[in-house]
Amino acid sequence: MAELAGDRIRHTVAFTPTHTPGSEAEADFLAAAARLENIPGVEAFEILRETSPKNAYRFGISMELADRAAYESYNGHPDHVRFVQERWLPEVADFLEIDYEPC
Amino acid sequence: MAELAGDRIRHTVAFTPTHTPGSEAEADFLAAAARLENIPGVEAFEILRETSPKNAYRFGISMELADRAAYESYNGHPDHVRFVQERWLPEVADFLEIDYEPC
Repeated sequence: MAELAGDRIRHTVAFTPTHTPGSEAEADFLAAAARLENIPGVEAFEILRETSPKNAYRFGISMELADRAAYESYNGHPDHVRFVQERWLPEVADFLEIDYEPC
Repeated sequence: MAELAGDRIRHTVAFTPTHTPGSEAEADFLAAAARLENIPGVEAFEILRETSPKNAYRFGISMELADRAAYESYNGHPDHVRFVQERWLPEVADFLEIDYEPC
């Protein structure tokens, strides 16, 4: 993942699943989230553990999109919409979206 | 910035300065924050604009440290301690620390 430049957007979401930490249900959810990487335009995709004691989130997703058009295409993609409706909304207890662009 | 692996830690802070957006005081604060890059162990350093409407933060700092020891060394470095006391605490209205490590 190179330093952010031009129109690139780093889209991140810190989140906490509803599932018991370390459970199979949690692992299944993370595996489903990992498949977002296949959506066209998604770059530098990572699923990460959140480890700061300054917040209560347990995981994060980080990805980069080439520009605003690629971001909107990702947001509207059927696989993303379905994932949000069928998995994210029922299985995530708390989350925070943070998007970064170059200064 | 390569994908996070091993003991690496990505340390990020989303924040909003007290200063009027676009003011010289804000620019001066961001310039001071940018000098954190010179602290030994700091890698992949970025100052970024926060652009998601889902939160109120205006900027972010992102950096990577090789491992927990490098992170603690950074946290305790006199330049970091001085920056926090003399600039961060008086000049930041709100902030959120989010740290990521590989799954």
